[in-house]
Amino acid sequence: MLANSNVRIERIVSRGHVSPSGFWYDQDQAEWVLVVSGAARLRFENEATPRELRAGSYVQIAAHRRHRVEWTDPHEPTVWLAVFYC
Amino acid sequence: MLANSNVRIERIVSRGHVSPSGFWYDQDQAEWVLVVSGAARLRFENEATPRELRAGSYVQIAAHRRHRVEWTDPHEPTVWLAVFYC
Repeated sequence: MLANSNVRIERIVSRGHVSPSGFWYDQDQAEWVLVVSGAARLRFENEATPRELRAGSYVQIAAHRRHRVEWTDPHEPTVWLAVFYC
Repeated sequence: MLANSNVRIERIVSRGHVSPSGFWYDQDQAEWVLVVSGAARLRFENEATPRELRAGSYVQIAAHRRHRVEWTDPHEPTVWLAVFYC
Protein backbone atom coordinates (compact mmCIF):
# COMPACT_ATOMS: atom_id res chain seq x y z
CA MET A 1 0.00 0.00 0.00
CA LEU A 2 2.94 2.29 0.69
CA ALA A 3 6.68 1.91 0.87
CA ASN A 4 9.43 4.45 1.27
CA SER A 5 12.71 4.37 3.12
CA ASN A 6 11.12 5.04 6.52
CA VAL A 7 7.68 3.51 6.34
CA ARG A 8 5.97 0.52 4.78
CA ILE A 9 2.24 -0.11 5.04
CA GLU A 10 0.75 -3.51 4.33
CA ARG A 11 -2.72 -4.96 4.37
CA ILE A 12 -2.63 -8.55 5.54
CA VAL A 13 -5.52 -11.02 5.46
CA SER A 14 -5.48 -14.06 7.77
CA ARG A 15 -8.01 -16.81 7.15
CA GLY A 16 -7.66 -18.82 10.34
CA HIS A 17 -3.89 -18.61 9.95
CA VAL A 18 -1.67 -19.13 13.00
CA SER A 19 2.10 -19.00 13.28
CA PRO A 20 3.71 -22.45 13.08
CA SER A 21 4.47 -24.06 16.43
CA GLY A 22 7.66 -22.63 17.90
CA PHE A 23 7.88 -19.86 15.30
CA TRP A 24 8.47 -16.27 16.42
CA TYR A 25 8.50 -13.14 14.32
CA ASP A 26 11.72 -11.23 15.00
CA GLN A 27 11.75 -8.10 12.86
CA ASP A 28 14.37 -5.47 12.21
CA GLN A 29 11.73 -2.74 11.99
CA ALA A 30 9.21 -1.63 14.56
CA GLU A 31 5.62 -2.42 13.67
CA TRP A 32 2.29 -0.87 14.51
CA VAL A 33 -0.60 -3.16 13.66
CA LEU A 34 -4.35 -2.60 13.68
CA VAL A 35 -7.03 -5.27 13.39
CA VAL A 36 -9.46 -3.80 10.87
CA SER A 37 -11.90 -6.71 10.98
CA GLY A 38 -11.99 -10.21 12.41
CA ALA A 39 -10.21 -11.24 15.61
CA ALA A 40 -6.83 -12.58 16.66
CA ARG A 41 -4.62 -13.56 19.56
CA LEU A 42 -1.13 -12.13 19.46
CA ARG A 43 1.45 -13.51 21.87
CA PHE A 44 4.67 -11.83 22.91
CA GLU A 45 7.47 -14.11 24.00
CA ASN A 46 7.87 -12.27 27.29
CA GLU A 47 4.17 -12.39 28.14
CA ALA A 48 2.46 -15.46 29.55
CA THR A 49 -0.86 -15.03 27.80
CA PRO A 50 -1.74 -13.77 24.35
CA ARG A 51 -3.41 -10.44 23.77
CA GLU A 52 -6.95 -10.65 22.51
CA LEU A 53 -7.44 -8.39 19.52
CA ARG A 54 -10.65 -7.54 17.75
CA ALA A 55 -11.69 -4.92 15.17
CA GLY A 56 -10.19 -1.62 16.25
CA SER A 57 -7.49 -3.14 18.50
CA TYR A 58 -3.94 -2.07 17.81
CA VAL A 59 -0.53 -2.99 19.13
CA GLN A 60 2.89 -1.43 18.90
CA ILE A 61 5.70 -3.96 18.49
CA ALA A 62 9.28 -2.82 19.03
CA ALA A 63 11.94 -4.06 16.64
CA HIS A 64 13.15 -7.53 17.63
CA ARG A 65 10.38 -8.02 20.13
CA ARG A 66 9.53 -11.63 19.45
CA HIS A 67 5.87 -12.36 18.86
CA ARG A 68 3.57 -14.84 17.16
CA VAL A 69 -0.02 -15.14 16.03
CA GLU A 70 -1.63 -17.80 18.19
CA TRP A 71 -5.08 -17.68 16.67
CA THR A 72 -7.19 -15.87 14.12
CA ASP A 73 -10.92 -16.22 13.74
CA PRO A 74 -11.60 -19.28 11.56
CA HIS A 75 -15.07 -18.03 10.62
CA GLU A 76 -14.20 -14.74 8.93
CA PRO A 77 -11.08 -13.18 7.44
CA THR A 78 -8.98 -11.15 9.85
CA VAL A 79 -7.74 -8.00 8.12
CA TRP A 80 -4.65 -6.35 9.56
CA LEU A 81 -3.18 -3.01 8.68
CA ALA A 82 0.52 -3.14 9.49
CA VAL A 83 2.80 -0.10 9.52
CA PHE A 84 6.50 -0.92 9.64
CA TYR A 85 8.77 1.96 10.54
CA CYS A 86 12.17 2.91 11.90
CA MET B 1 -2.20 6.04 18.37
CA LEU B 2 1.52 6.22 17.66
CA ALA B 3 4.10 8.96 17.49
CA ASN B 4 7.84 8.81 17.06
CA SER B 5 10.28 11.00 15.20
CA ASN B 6 9.49 9.46 11.79
CA VAL B 7 5.88 8.38 12.00
CA ARG B 8 2.64 9.55 13.56
CA ILE B 9 -0.58 7.58 13.31
CA GLU B 10 -3.93 9.18 14.03
CA ARG B 11 -7.51 8.02 14.01
CA ILE B 12 -9.79 10.82 12.84
CA VAL B 13 -13.59 10.80 12.93
CA SER B 14 -15.53 13.13 10.63
CA ARG B 15 -19.23 13.57 11.27
CA GLY B 16 -20.30 15.31 8.10
CA HIS B 17 -17.30 17.62 8.47
CA VAL B 18 -15.97 19.45 5.42
CA SER B 19 -13.02 21.82 5.13
CA PRO B 20 -14.03 25.48 5.31
CA SER B 21 -14.54 27.20 1.97
CA GLY B 22 -11.19 28.18 0.48
CA PHE B 23 -9.21 26.22 3.07
CA TRP B 24 -6.42 23.89 1.93
CA TYR B 25 -4.36 21.53 4.03
CA ASP B 26 -0.68 22.17 3.31
CA GLN B 27 1.39 19.81 5.45
CA ASP B 28 5.10 19.53 6.10
CA GLN B 29 4.88 15.75 6.31
CA ALA B 30 3.69 13.25 3.77
CA GLU B 31 0.44 11.51 4.67
CA TRP B 32 -1.09 8.17 3.85
CA VAL B 33 -4.76 8.03 4.70
CA LEU B 34 -7.24 5.17 4.70
CA VAL B 35 -11.01 5.45 5.00
CA VAL B 36 -11.88 2.74 7.52
CA SER B 37 -15.63 3.37 7.42
CA GLY B 38 -17.97 5.97 6.01
CA ALA B 39 -17.32 7.89 2.81
CA ALA B 40 -15.62 11.12 1.76
CA ARG B 41 -14.61 13.30 -1.15
CA LEU B 42 -11.02 14.50 -1.07
CA ARG B 43 -9.98 17.21 -3.49
CA PHE B 44 -6.46 18.03 -4.55
CA GLU B 45 -5.81 21.59 -5.64
CA ASN B 46 -4.32 20.45 -8.95
CA GLU B 47 -7.21 18.13 -9.79
CA ALA B 48 -10.53 19.34 -11.18
CA THR B 49 -12.76 16.86 -9.40
CA PRO B 50 -12.59 15.32 -5.95
CA ARG B 51 -11.68 11.72 -5.37
CA GLU B 52 -14.50 9.58 -4.11
CA LEU B 53 -13.37 7.55 -1.12
CA ARG B 54 -15.26 4.80 0.66
CA ALA B 55 -14.31 2.15 3.24
CA GLY B 56 -11.03 0.61 2.14
CA SER B 57 -9.99 3.52 -0.10
CA TYR B 58 -6.60 5.01 0.57
CA VAL B 59 -4.63 7.95 -0.76
CA GLN B 60 -1.02 8.99 -0.54
CA ILE B 61 -0.52 12.73 -0.14
CA ALA B 62 2.93 14.20 -0.70
CA ALA B 63 4.16 16.88 1.68
CA HIS B 64 2.80 20.29 0.68
CA ARG B 65 0.37 18.85 -1.81
CA ARG B 66 -2.61 21.04 -1.12
CA HIS B 67 -5.88 19.22 -0.50
CA ARG B 68 -9.20 19.63 1.22
CA VAL B 69 -12.12 17.51 2.36
CA GLU B 70 -15.09 18.47 0.21
CA TRP B 71 -17.63 16.12 1.75
CA THR B 72 -18.04 13.40 4.30
CA ASP B 73 -21.09 11.23 4.70
CA PRO B 74 -23.59 13.12 6.88
CA HIS B 75 -25.40 9.90 7.83
CA GLU B 76 -22.59 7.97 9.50
CA PRO B 77 -19.19 8.82 10.98
CA THR B 78 -16.30 8.64 8.56
CA VAL B 79 -13.31 7.08 10.29
CA TRP B 80 -9.89 7.81 8.83
CA LEU B 81 -6.60 6.25 9.70
CA ALA B 82 -3.88 8.75 8.87
CA VAL B 83 -0.18 7.92 8.83
CA PHE B 84 2.10 10.97 8.69
CA TYR B 85 5.70 10.25 7.77
CA CYS B 86 8.90 11.77 6.43
